[in-house]
Amino acid sequence: MEVENKYVTIKDHIDGHPSESNFELRSAPLSLSIEEGTADIIVKNIYLSIDPYQLNRMKRCSPSQNSVKGAAQLVPGKEIDAIGIGRVVASGNDEFKKDDMVYGQLAWQEYTVVHLGTVLTKIDKPEFPLSYYLGPLGTSGFTAYAGLYDICKVKNGEKVFVSTASGSVGNLVGQFAKLSGCYVVGSTGSKSKVDMLKEKLGFDEAFNYKEEPDLNSALRRYFPEGIDVYFDNVGAEMLEAAVANMNPFGRVAACGAISEYTEKGRRAAALNMMDVIYKRINIRGYLVSDYFGGHLQDEFLSATADHVRHGRIHVLEDVSRGVESIPSAFAGLFRGDNVGKKLVQVAEF
Amino acid sequence: MEVENKYVTIKDHIDGHPSESNFELRSAPLSLSIEEGTADIIVKNIYLSIDPYQLNRMKRCSPSQNSVKGAAQLVPGKEIDAIGIGRVVASGNDEFKKDDMVYGQLAWQEYTVVHLGTVLTKIDKPEFPLSYYLGPLGTSGFTAYAGLYDICKVKNGEKVFVSTASGSVGNLVGQFAKLSGCYVVGSTGSKSKVDMLKEKLGFDEAFNYKEEPDLNSALRRYFPEGIDVYFDNVGAEMLEAAVANMNPFGRVAACGAISEYTEKGRRAAALNMMDVIYKRINIRGYLVSDYFGGHLQDEFLSATADHVRHGRIHVLEDVSRGVESIPSAFAGLFRGDNVGKKLVQVAEF
Repeated sequence: MEVENKYVTIKDHIDGHPSESNFELRSAPLSLSIEEGTADIIVKNIYLSIDPYQLNRMKRCSPSQNSVKGAAQLVPGKEIDAIGIGRVVASGNDEFKKDDMVYGQLAWQEYTVVHLGTVLTKIDKPEFPLSYYLGPLGTSGFTAYAGLYDICKVKNGEKVFVSTASGSVGNLVGQFAKLSGCYVVGSTGSKSKVDMLKEKLGFDEAFNYKEEPDLNSALRRYFPEGIDVYFDNVGAEMLEAAVANMNPFGRVAACGAISEYTEKGRRAAALNMMDVIYKRINIRGYLVSDYFGGHLQDEFLSATADHVRHGRIHVLEDVSRGVESIPSAFAGLFRGDNVGKKLVQVAEF
Repeated sequence: MEVENKYVTIKDHIDGHPSESNFELRSAPLSLSIEEGTADIIVKNIYLSIDPYQLNRMKRCSPSQNSVKGAAQLVPGKEIDAIGIGRVVASGNDEFKKDDMVYGQLAWQEYTVVHLGTVLTKIDKPEFPLSYYLGPLGTSGFTAYAGLYDICKVKNGEKVFVSTASGSVGNLVGQFAKLSGCYVVGSTGSKSKVDMLKEKLGFDEAFNYKEEPDLNSALRRYFPEGIDVYFDNVGAEMLEAAVANMNPFGRVAACGAISEYTEKGRRAAALNMMDVIYKRINIRGYLVSDYFGGHLQDEFLSATADHVRHGRIHVLEDVSRGVESIPSAFAGLFRGDNVGKKLVQVAEF
C-alpha cells in the first residue's frame, strides 16, 4: 500500500521571528511496506512535539548547530525531525511489531520511516493518556526535573524563579518546585496566564513581564529574600535581573534563551561578573539529552508518574490538529500563543 | 613602649582606576603592651599582601560589599585590613607568645592589634622563605588550586586558558595546570611577560592581549582544539571570547573581573547564552575564603609544598619596601606593573 505522506518543511533558513509563511506543506509518496534487507520501522505519527529550540536548527547559522547531534541544521525542503509518539504500521526490526505504540525521534509528517540506530522506545500498556509521554512524562518533564534537581540541586524552602512559566517546561519546573516545598514565582506574558499559574498551578506569585518596565525591581519586589534558584528559559535581560537578585550560592539552570533565538543580531545577557564571583553564583548550561538512559531518568519517571497518578501535577496541554497546523503551532510559540505543552495531533489512535 | 604606627588609608572612596593620590600615609600612637583584660595580640607586620579585590572595598558602592564578610566597605581615614605575615611582639592570648611568626588578617600598617576572633595562624619552623606563605603556599596558591581542581575539576590533557597569567594567581594556575599535564595558554599585558610565561614558567603559549584587536580570533588561533577550562581573572570581553571558543562541557572558574573593577559605569560580559546552553558550559563564581579550614586546604598545602620543595613551581614575587610604598604597589596592580605576587615588606624579620 502506498500513501501520499504529508510533511512540513522550511522554505528557506529563518532569521528572526518565525511566521507561518516560512513553512510549506509538501507530500511524497511512501510505500507502507518495509524495504527488503533493512531493519526500518514505519510509524504512523499521532502526536508531534512543537518546541522552540527547533528554531535554532532552522537558522542559517547558530552556535547550537555545531555542538550537538540532535541540533543539526535543517535543510529547506526536507523533513524536520522531532520527538513524537506513533503507532508501528510495518516493521523490519524484531524488537518492534505492528501496532506497537512508540515514542522517540519521528518528524513533522504523517508517517515516518525510522532507521536502525534512531532512538525509539516502546510504550507498553500506557497507564496515562499518550500525550503525557511528550509532556510531564517526556522530555519536557525530564528537562524540568534534571534542571531543578540535578543542575540546581534545589532544596526544600528555597526561593525559585522560573521564566516562561506557563510554557511546556516552565509550568512543570514550578509544579515540581512547589512539591519540593519551595517558594515559587513565575514570569509569563499575559494576565490570564498569571492567573492560571497562581490559581490552577499553585505558584506563590506570578507576573506579566510585558508590564514590568524594570525587571530588576520586579524581581526585588517578588523576592524580598532573594532568589536561590533561577530556571532560565529566556536569557538576556531576565537573566541579568535574576543574577542581580540572587542570593549567595545561587544557581542558574540555563535551559533556554528564547529571547535570544529570534534575534538576527547579537543579543546577550550582560552579566555583572562581580555579582557572579562575590555571590558564588553557578550558571550551568545543560541539555536533557545528556541524561537519556541515565539513572536520573528512572527516578524522574517513577516520581513524576506518581505525582500525575495522584493528581499532584496538573497536565497543561495545548493541542492543535492536523499536520497543516504545525506552522502556526510553531510560530505561535514565539508569540506566546501556547499554554503548557504544545502538541500537534496528526492522527487518531 | 609606645610607637608611632604608620598606616595607609584612602582619602575618600575610589571610583574608576586607583592612583597614588587616592591614598595617604597616616600614623597613630600605639602602646606595644596588651590592654588588661583583653586577649589581643600585637603583631609587627613583615609582609603585606597587595591584591586587586581590595579596590572593590574602596568603592562607594559595589556588589561585593554586601555579599561577603571579608569584603566589607573600607572607611576613609581608617586602617585597611589585609592578609599579611608578621611577628608577635606582645600577646594577651595563651595560644600565641612573643616572637611567634603568624599569618592572617593584619592591615596595611606597621603594627596591627589583632583581636580575639580574627583568623591568625602560627607558622611553626617555616620550611620556606616567609613570603611564600602569602604566595604559592598562601591565598594566591590556594585560589589557583581550588579554582583549577575543585571548581573546574581539570583533567590531564585538557586545554586550559588563564587570563592575567603573570599575576599572583594566574601564574600559579598555569604552573599547576602544566604539572597536571594540560596544554596551557596565558594572556598578559606585555611582551616581556609573554616571554617569561613561555620561557620561565613553561606555558605552551602566551599572548599580549593589548596587541590582539580581536580576542575571539586570538583564542581561536591559540586553541585550534577549543578551550576546556578557562580560569577567568578579568571578565568582560575576555570571558565572552573564551565562552565563544569553549568546547562542550567547558568550565569557567570566575575568580576575578579586574577589567570590570575599574569601571565607573556598567561593564559586563555579554554572554551568548546559546553557547552556554548548547555547549553545556558551567560558569562558577567562587571565593577562596569558602575553602578555609576545609579538607582541600590540607591537600593543597601538602601538594604545593612538595612542588616548591622540588623546584617544580617557580615562585614569582614582586616585593616593594616600606609602608610608604603601598599606594604605588596597589595602583600598579591596575597598570600591570607587577610580575607575580605583589608584596610590600614593611619590616625586616
